[in-house]
This record gives sequence, C-alpha cells and structure tokens, in this order.
Amino acid sequence: MTIHPISVLWKNNTDKHYSLKIIDISLRGCAQVMFQNNPITGLLFFIAIFIAAYNNNNPLAAWGCIVGTVLASITGAIAHDVKSWRDGLYSYNGCLVGIAIPVFITATPIMWLCLVVGSVVSVIATVCIADILKTWKVAALTAPFVLTTWVILLASYAFHNIYGSGLPAPELSQHYIAASQNHYSISFFIDGTLHGVSQVFLFPGILASLFFIAGLAVESVVCACYAIIGSFIATLLACYLGANPHEIEAGLYAFSAVLTSVALGTVFNHPGWQVFIYTVSGIIFTVFIQAAMNVLLMPFGLPTLTMPFVISSWLFLVPNKELMPEHRH
Amino acid sequence: MTIHPISVLWKNNTDKHYSLKIIDISLRGCAQVMFQNNPITGLLFFIAIFIAAYNNNNPLAAWGCIVGTVLASITGAIAHDVKSWRDGLYSYNGCLVGIAIPVFITATPIMWLCLVVGSVVSVIATVCIADILKTWKVAALTAPFVLTTWVILLASYAFHNIYGSGLPAPELSQHYIAASQNHYSISFFIDGTLHGVSQVFLFPGILASLFFIAGLAVESVVCACYAIIGSFIATLLACYLGANPHEIEAGLYAFSAVLTSVALGTVFNHPGWQVFIYTVSGIIFTVFIQAAMNVLLMPFGLPTLTMPFVISSWLFLVPNKELMPEHRH
Amino acid sequence: MTIHPISVLWKNNTDKHYSLKIIDISLRGCAQVMFQNNPITGLLFFIAIFIAAYNNNNPLAAWGCIVGTVLASITGAIAHDVKSWRDGLYSYNGCLVGIAIPVFITATPIMWLCLVVGSVVSVIATVCIADILKTWKVAALTAPFVLTTWVILLASYAFHNIYGSGLPAPELSQHYIAASQNHYSISFFIDGTLHGVSQVFLFPGILASLFFIAGLAVESVVCACYAIIGSFIATLLACYLGANPHEIEAGLYAFSAVLTSVALGTVFNHPGWQVFIYTVSGIIFTVFIQAAMNVLLMPFGLPTLTMPFVISSWLFLVPNKELMPEHRH
Repeated sequence: MTIHPISVLWKNNTDKHYSLKIIDISLRGCAQVMFQNNPITGLLFFIAIFIAAYNNNNPLAAWGCIVGTVLASITGAIAHDVKSWRDGLYSYNGCLVGIAIPVFITATPIMWLCLVVGSVVSVIATVCIADILKTWKVAALTAPFVLTTWVILLASYAFHNIYGSGLPAPELSQHYIAASQNHYSISFFIDGTLHGVSQVFLFPGILASLFFIAGLAVESVVCACYAIIGSFIATLLACYLGANPHEIEAGLYAFSAVLTSVALGTVFNHPGWQVFIYTVSGIIFTVFIQAAMNVLLMPFGLPTLTMPFVISSWLFLVPNKELMPEHRH
Repeated sequence: MTIHPISVLWKNNTDKHYSLKIIDISLRGCAQVMFQNNPITGLLFFIAIFIAAYNNNNPLAAWGCIVGTVLASITGAIAHDVKSWRDGLYSYNGCLVGIAIPVFITATPIMWLCLVVGSVVSVIATVCIADILKTWKVAALTAPFVLTTWVILLASYAFHNIYGSGLPAPELSQHYIAASQNHYSISFFIDGTLHGVSQVFLFPGILASLFFIAGLAVESVVCACYAIIGSFIATLLACYLGANPHEIEAGLYAFSAVLTSVALGTVFNHPGWQVFIYTVSGIIFTVFIQAAMNVLLMPFGLPTLTMPFVISSWLFLVPNKELMPEHRH
Repeated sequence: MTIHPISVLWKNNTDKHYSLKIIDISLRGCAQVMFQNNPITGLLFFIAIFIAAYNNNNPLAAWGCIVGTVLASITGAIAHDVKSWRDGLYSYNGCLVGIAIPVFITATPIMWLCLVVGSVVSVIATVCIADILKTWKVAALTAPFVLTTWVILLASYAFHNIYGSGLPAPELSQHYIAASQNHYSISFFIDGTLHGVSQVFLFPGILASLFFIAGLAVESVVCACYAIIGSFIATLLACYLGANPHEIEAGLYAFSAVLTSVALGTVFNHPGWQVFIYTVSGIIFTVFIQAAMNVLLMPFGLPTLTMPFVISSWLFLVPNKELMPEHRH
C-alpha cells in the first residue's frame, strides 16, 4: 500500500494535537467494530450510523455512539499499551455501548449516566478480557461491550429510574410455529442480507448498510465480500431452518454471522480455500448459536447483542490460533 | 499386558487401510466415552447402544451414533495430533452427539443435518476446549458434546423445521414434594444402579448396562467396579435426600456419578485408599450438582446431559492434577 | 507493627497444640472473609455473627458458622500450602457456607449434612479456583463459597428432604415500579450503610455491624474506613437509581460494594489517590452488577450471595494485577 501525502500530514497532526489524536483514535475505534484500522472507514461508519439512527427515529443513538467512542478513546490511555490504544482497540466496545444504551433504555439524564459508566467500564473490561484471553492468543472481540451492556440492561429491571423500554418482555421459551408456509422473494434475501450488515451496529437499514460496506471496501474489498457472503449464507440458512421471517428480514439472524465471516475469513486467518470452508462452517454454526442464545436469554428479557459472534469466533479461532496474524496477538 | 497376535494383525491392517483405520478410531472413540482405549470395549458398547436404542423404540439413535462417531473420526484428522486422533479422543463427543440428537429431535432430514453439523463441530469444540484446559492439565471430558448439543437443542425452539419432541417443557422450578413416603425395594436399587450405567449413553436398560459393564471389564475390572459403585452410591444418596423415585429408578441421578467415579477413581488418579475416599466425595457432590443442574435448566427446557460429571470432575481434578497419568496431559 | 509478647505466646502454643492451631486458623479464617489475617479480628467477627444471628432469630446460623469454619480449617490441611492454610485462606469460604446453609435451608439433620458437605467441598473449590486464577494472578475471593452454596440451594428444589424455606420463589423478572416518591431520611442512609457491612455475613444489624467495623479497625483503620465508604456510596447510588427502598435499608445493595471497596482500596492495591478513584469506579459498577444479578437469578429463586463483589473485583483487579501485594499472589 502506498502512503498518501495526506495520510502523512494526518499522522503528523494527530501526533501533535491531543484533540486530533482522540478524533483519530475514535474514528479507528469505530472502524475496529468490523476489525479495520482506518480513519476513513471509521468516518464512513459514523455516517452510516447517523443515517441508520435518524431513519429509525432514534437520533440519540448516533450522538450516544460519538460520546461512547470518544469517552472510551480518552479512557483507553490508562491501558499502558500505546499501540493498541492508537489503533482504536480500546474504543470499539465503547462505540457499541454508546449505541446500545439509547436503543434499549428510555432517554433520561440517568440514561446518559449509564452510557458514561458503560463506556468507561467497557475499557476496563477490554483490558481484563484481553489479558485473560492472551493465554490462548485470541482477542476480546466485542465481549466487553456485550457483558457491560448486559449488566446495565439487567440492572434496568431493578431500578425505577432506568427504564428498558426497548427490551423484550421476559418470558419462558416456546417452540416457534410459523403462521403459514413462506414464499421467500429475491428482495427478501437482499433485504435480509443488507440489514444483517447494518444490524452489527444495532439498526436495520439499506442505505446505512451500503455505507458500512463502502467503509470496509476502502480498506479491503475481500473483507467487504466476506461481510456480504456471511450475511447471505446466514439469511439463507435461517430460512431453510424455519426461523421467524420478520426477524430474518430485519437481519437479526445475520449480523453475528457477518462478524464471524470477516473475523474467520480475513482478519485472523490468511485467506485461502481451506480458510473459506472453515469460515463457512463458522457461519453455519453462528446461526445455530444465534438461535440458541435468542432462546436462552428469553426468560431474562435480554438481547443477545453480538455474543453469538464472540462465542462462535472463539470456538473456531482457538483451534487454529497459530494462523493468526502477528498484529492481533 | 501381553499383546495378542490378533491385536498385532489388527494394528497392521488399520495402519494400511484408511477405512479400517476409521473403524478402529470409531470403536476406540465409542469406548472413550468411558475413558477406555480399546476397540473390543467399543464394539461391546456399540452392541449395548443398539440393544438400548431398539428396546426404547428409537433405532435411529443407534444409527445416528454410528454416523456421529464415524464423522467425528474422519474430522478428527484436522487436529494435527495423530496420537490422540488414533486413540479416539476426537471421536467420543461425536458418538454422544449422534445419540442425543435423535433422542431429543424429531426424525426429519433436518435432524440429520443437525447431527452432521453437531458431530463435526464437536471435534472443533474438543480441540478448542482441550487447548484452553491444558493450561491446568485437565481434559475436555464430554464438555464438547454437551455444549454443542445444548446449542442445537436450544436452537430447536427458534426454528419451525427442527422440533425438539424429546425436550421437557420450559417451566419455573418448584420445590419437589414427594407424593407419599416411599419404601424402596432391593430391586429398585438394582434397577437404579444398572440404569445409571446405561444412561451415560442416554437410555435406561438392564441388558445394555451389562454389555457396558462387560466392555469396561474387558479393559479393566477395577474400572467396571468403580462404575457400579458410583452408580450405587448415587442411587442411595438420591433416595436419602428424597429425589423423584421415577427419575432415580431410571438412573437419572446416577449416570453422571458413574463417569465421575471412573474418572476420579481410575483414569486420572492412581487407585488407592486416599483416592477411593476422594472419589466417594466426588460422587456425593456429583449428585448435588446433578440435582442443581436439573433445576437450573428447567426454565430453558434443556436436559443436563453429562455436564454434572464434567463440572464435578474438573472441580475435583484441578486440585490434584499432579497425580494425572502422563497420557492424559 | 511491634509484636506483643502475648502474640508470641499465642504463636508458640498454636504451633505446638493441634486444637489451638485449628482455633487460630478458624479465627483467621473468619477474619479473611474481609481479608484480614488477625485472630483478634476473627474473634470480634464471631461475636458479631452471634449477635446478628440471635437478633435475627436464627441462632443455628452462628453455630453453623463455627462448624463450617472449623471443618474447613481441618480440611484445608490437604492443600499442601501450609502458609495459606495457617493464614485461614482455606477457611473463610467454609465460614460463609456455615452461615448461608442455616439461613436458607430449614433446620433438619439433612441440613447439617449439607453444611458439612458444603464446608468440605468449599475447600476443594478454593484450591481448584485459586489454581485456575493464578494464571492471571488474582485470588479466588468468595467464589468457592458462592458456587458451592448455589449448588446446594438449587439442589434443594429437587430434593423432598431439603427445604429451602429462606429462598425467594422463582419468578420472571419485571421492571421495578416504586410505590411512591421516596423521601430518604438521614437515619435511612445510616441504617443502609451499617446493614450493608453486616450483610457481608448475611444478616442485617447495627450492633453487629459496629463489631465488624471494630474488627477491621483492630487490623487497619484505613480498611474500616473503606468498608464504610463503600457501603455509603452504594446506598446513595442505589437510592439515586431508584432501587427498592426496603432492600436498600436492609443493606442488600451495599454488602457487595463493602467487599469491593476493601479489596480494591486496601488489600490488592497500594492506597493512594489514583487507587481511590479506581475503587470508587469499582463501587459504582458493583451496584449495577448487584442489581443485574438480582434480576438474573430471579427465575431460579437464588440469592446472589457475594458474587457481584467477586465479578466486579476480578474485572477491576485483572487489569492492574501488577500492583498486587506479594502475599496475595
């Protein structure tokens, strides 16, 4: 890759000015949700998040995302690992916490307190989990985001002043019976696949999805392809197994598979045929884990967030960790 | 142990022919469910499984067991650990997955897809969990089987085309009240003890149980005794504590204890008086863990499978791992 | 610290006489629940436990505490780590098991069997968990007590002869709605704070709390202050977030924070301003974890015990484990 003069200029300025440095880290942090270390990718992702949040009538989620990412970027300095900090590896969990809290919790001043607490704790959780997992040379992925957010969402049930208006009602699981035989159209699969990409950031949306894919393609076209392939295979499989078609169309069976696909196919393994087959296996099992966790969390009224991706990726990464590129050790 | 000429002949042929090698690994894999590395034991176990499955009107479970074991034996070659692969250590989880899926899921073509996915993933899970646990020098035991199967069983609730007809209905736990004071006969204890042995492979059955015990005795009479002792103590304790007598008689409080008893008493420790007392402590606590997990999984409509044995054995093995025979490191 | 002649006399006698040694270890074990290695602290704690148990009409909990602590102290000798054994580090979990079983289980001979099994297994669990956690240089804390007790309490639902009369009924969680706007008085905060300290040992109580604080102050006044500060901040935050006022007043939102505060502020870190801020962050997130676990355990009819403290402390200790004083490695 040739280094553009503008990229050198940017680097020099971010080294000198603290506020520019935090902006750079925040952009990279946003991009790291999908494993990219590139501020342009991050910028495109932020645009996509704003489009998705405004289209879904929840603008606070976009602003919360900025607050969460910036706070995590500032807090990340405590981690004593300057390289990871500068690469945004302490920021991406705060980015997702910043979206998730306004999505699931009613907007009040205490919601913002939860968002601040969640973003800061997500950094401590990242350091903690990364330290535990380095024994087996796997990354923390989005586990810090999921665990921190689950704690706050569960706590919302116990606190009068935090209301989880976006949470499903706790109930015992029952076998899902389809209302009628479904005839899936081509547009159904396109919708499910694209929504799957944008659901990584907790919103459905076609236009947002195209921005996310563009952001990936800026850094790596292969990566963008793996995201689409992962989403498409997951959508197809969920239809074949007979999942709820509304959930499939909203991308809720595909978003974890998008991340698994990118992680297994391009980030932690060297691309190739064997890796492609291994990645497809990972995508298939991610759909089962997604369904299993939907059911498992039903009695608690909790969303799975990206935990199915995390579990599936750990499962498939630990056995072949010797393939992992150096920079992710 | 003297080496029979027939055993040498078998070894030479399994080295030369791939299909014989897979048969040998599959037989050893079946035997490894109870920690034995012996194809004769495996053969007796397979006979027992067929008897039990046909007697319980679920012949598919026996055929599924063969499919699962063979698939796991083939997949195990990816693990780059030829010794463990040849010893069947990547096959025993697939063997149990192959029984469990037909036991809990209604027979459809998608059930067979689940069985194939489960068997293959059980190998990846074995490599993953074994790698994680080698930090503390304990074995994966049947955790890969349990976790893989749980994912598929939970997912069955979310998918219209997978029906978990053998699963208990999800419900909130209530304190168990015995209908009347029970008077346990001697035949009750004999039934509970023998069913406990065969329930390791998910079916009750007296004749099957005798074949399982014979299979153990072929390799080690001490091992067979520990299996019976474990089952008997667990049956006795469950009666004393007042568990559901139908479940005790079906061996459902004893099967985890059978495995704990064999694991702690003969496989991972050198036999002796201290080890005997330690093993009895392990058996006693396994009964508590079995009851606790029955209750814990009630709201999810899930069976415990052999997880109580896994947890109990990890709990009792980590503290004295320096006693573990070399071959299990 | 100067060494009193009486302390030398005590040391010499405990070295010589087995029964005195067990008494010394039991006293230190009781003190280790709050991280103190001091028999005088343990004596004051035992007095506090007797006051609290008798005032709450459950004298068996005090006697159970003695039985549990002594049994764990005797069993601890199997651990081959004489220093930790003599310091009471294998006894404090048995101390808490000995209180918890009579608090939650109806008094019958089988209750005492559970207490004996729980105390002995708590030692094995301590060795197991400490061995697992030494990979990351963190302590087992009270995890062995919590996990062992959870197993027995869950099992009580399945056994006719063990009745968990002190357990909450299993139910699905609902968002807590306060009956009316609360006006908290100063005495409310004082009660909540003091009850929070004594709830570490599972009972509310003002007088008992003063004895616990005195016990801490005997060894370290800073430690006693951190206990009170942790309890006060947690009480305040729980009010602000709108928790159930009866539970706040009973100290149920503060007891985990008391332990987190002492652990992060004085035991595992060198005191100072940075550590103080870090500890306050830990206290704040402990309140969220406490609420989250209350909700998470509702469908199982289980109390959280001190698990919120354990999780919060692991989360905040792993990232800065290099600060840990040597003796706790």
